[in-house]
Amino acid sequence: MVRLEKIEYKPMPVRDLLVEIKDLSELMIDLAYSAALFHSHELAEEVLELETHVDTLAYILKMNTMLAARDAEDAEALVGVSIVASAANKISDAAADIAALALREVHIHPIVRDAFSKVEEQLVRAEVKSNSILVGKKLGKLELAARIGVDVIAIRRKKKWIINPEENEVISNEDIVFARGAPQGIEELQMIAEGALQKFGD
Amino acid sequence: MVRLEKIEYKPMPVRDLLVEIKDLSELMIDLAYSAALFHSHELAEEVLELETHVDTLAYILKMNTMLAARDAEDAEALVGVSIVASAANKISDAAADIAALALREVHIHPIVRDAFSKVEEQLVRAEVKSNSILVGKKLGKLELAARIGVDVIAIRRKKKWIINPEENEVISNEDIVFARGAPQGIEELQMIAEGALQKFGD
Repeated sequence: MVRLEKIEYKPMPVRDLLVEIKDLSELMIDLAYSAALFHSHELAEEVLELETHVDTLAYILKMNTMLAARDAEDAEALVGVSIVASAANKISDAAADIAALALREVHIHPIVRDAFSKVEEQLVRAEVKSNSILVGKKLGKLELAARIGVDVIAIRRKKKWIINPEENEVISNEDIVFARGAPQGIEELQMIAEGALQKFGD
Repeated sequence: MVRLEKIEYKPMPVRDLLVEIKDLSELMIDLAYSAALFHSHELAEEVLELETHVDTLAYILKMNTMLAARDAEDAEALVGVSIVASAANKISDAAADIAALALREVHIHPIVRDAFSKVEEQLVRAEVKSNSILVGKKLGKLELAARIGVDVIAIRRKKKWIINPEENEVISNEDIVFARGAPQGIEELQMIAEGALQKFGD
């Protein structure tokens, strides 16, 4: 068991693993298109790290799926779990390919830009600093959608990803917040997260 | 040129091809999850046909990208187009894998069902019959969202896909309409499309 923990393979419910892999792969597509469109190295790096993370989760899921199958009927039904996990893994790979475009020196061709044009709303990655007014606040209380037209789609807390965070999620120092919205709101959120702005503008 | 037309390779703008491949691959993920969740053979078949269609488009795109590159700089920038097309193709393959689950006799494991649980809104595939009140109407005039809480996300007109159709799109006999919404609205739309219901309920 010690060895398992060391190499980070933990017994986790198959259900939780599958939900996490699926949600992460979908988030990655969003982040990847934004990374390529706005040539954001930071977003691209997040996608590439997520890809490794999804790979690891898929590996752990495979192990746990095997352990969960007690008889032939179980095993047959669980094949579906494995197929969905593999599909999500493919989606995650595709997202990494797209994100990698942002890391090249080559400029994005206008044709690619057009293909992503439906991404009208910008996506931001903001690091929460210790002096930010966001620290210790519940997401719901901040009313970011109403105030500045911005939706928090994910939070990364060190290695942990919280996708579509709930209203009672409390923002911590050093959280990485991913939000989507109109360019002005996005910019305001970034300044507030970084502590450069100490209250919401009106 | 005649041979090209015969085997359906047409000179098409690279831009249009890329947008279509990207949009179709994203639609496919949506359709695939619904196909698996609601064990819908019809939706699954649509996804599998779309996969072949996306493969063909990706092939045509590759040809046209080569023809579009006039010099080394062009070629370098166009590599990005090819990467995005390949990524969209991977996503389309993943969607096909998920959709294929619906075609198996094996029941979907509750774990898979849970992973898809965010798909609260049902997705429907409805064939428009000649006696439907939808025929000849502009999508915008129908006000389906306000009336029955349903959004049309795509229309298939024989081999042609219209994704996120605009308000002035006119619905035709034999259109296949894909819509998302609450179960009750979805059911009403299906009856109206099939001509079984001749007016919207109140």
